[in-house]
Amino acid sequence: MPKEEYPSIRRGGSLMLAWQISNKNVLIVGGGNVAAGRIINVLEADALVTLVCPRAGLLPEVAHRVHKGEITIYKDKEFDETDLEGIDMCLTAIDDPEASSRIWKLCKQKKIPVNVADVPKECDFYFGSQHRDGPLQIMISTNGAAPKLANIIRLKIAESLPTNAGNGCKNVGKLRRKLRSIAPGTSEGPKRMEWYWHS
Amino acid sequence: MPKEEYPSIRRGGSLMLAWQISNKNVLIVGGGNVAAGRIINVLEADALVTLVCPRAGLLPEVAHRVHKGEITIYKDKEFDETDLEGIDMCLTAIDDPEASSRIWKLCKQKKIPVNVADVPKECDFYFGSQHRDGPLQIMISTNGAAPKLANIIRLKIAESLPTNAGNGCKNVGKLRRKLRSIAPGTSEGPKRMEWYWHS
Repeated sequence: MPKEEYPSIRRGGSLMLAWQISNKNVLIVGGGNVAAGRIINVLEADALVTLVCPRAGLLPEVAHRVHKGEITIYKDKEFDETDLEGIDMCLTAIDDPEASSRIWKLCKQKKIPVNVADVPKECDFYFGSQHRDGPLQIMISTNGAAPKLANIIRLKIAESLPTNAGNGCKNVGKLRRKLRSIAPGTSEGPKRMEWYWHS
Repeated sequence: MPKEEYPSIRRGGSLMLAWQISNKNVLIVGGGNVAAGRIINVLEADALVTLVCPRAGLLPEVAHRVHKGEITIYKDKEFDETDLEGIDMCLTAIDDPEASSRIWKLCKQKKIPVNVADVPKECDFYFGSQHRDGPLQIMISTNGAAPKLANIIRLKIAESLPTNAGNGCKNVGKLRRKLRSIAPGTSEGPKRMEWYWHS
């Protein structure tokens, strides 16, 4: 096969991932608009949320989630280093660049993946615009170029998908599980690697 | 605002992220089909790739990338623990469940994010089906339910987007950078947090 046939590398992108944080401890620092969005993101991925923010700084939505018990541990205080103990991921969303930088550095020392809202240099990862329909999740990123366009593209994609796309994925998943229980060899073991790549 | 107006939590998803690995050291163990795909993924995000795989196990495409110098460090050998020194992320794609499990455990000890192909339990993150057009990246995940459907959805989305979507994002990015240099206050500082969430 001539080398031209191998896919060429288009640099400058991100590594798009579906992170698994079910039952992992995610620390969120801050209680405003950005924090409110982060809380939804991580709860939808079944994380255990520790929230650090003085009560006066909580948005009504965030206070509501604390009140409803959706937050596993709520700390009515400012962040300090001990808050990072046992934490698997940290998301900060506070309007204090110095405090944010301190958290970033501590996370780097402790090898905790971290996102400091609004400070791209202090992020192991970015968020994008997201469409969710049951097991189907679609994330649109413009790598910081055009966040509002990402949002428009997200709405267009949502419109263009069949209304039952999420359910379709769910049903295929059920069938595949059934198939595996009847004929385990067909989609288990090394052979699976072939299609895994396309998942 | 009555509490019903707050977005409800739809559990069971992943945390969709755009991981930043520019100039980070990513270890890939294996040289087959899955590894070949992983190599493209991480090179497109500007990672420095260390590849560990005996030469006899390299797919022609992978051998070609080694030959072209796209791989920063190539080790013609089986994996051992020292290969994890200085590594920021590890992706294994070998048909050896025992060796894979050992790598997973070592990565957990060392707090290195890791994906063991084909072993969902030994993954900090999953990959999805991806569409890329310049700065625009779209990732489709069905959370393991229907990988082939994810691929079909990806193709449908690619068809439905205007052909110049990537260029559009790029041009908006240029304009935004220009605007920031002329009027820094308009999109810098705490106020940015509001739209950052939508990026």
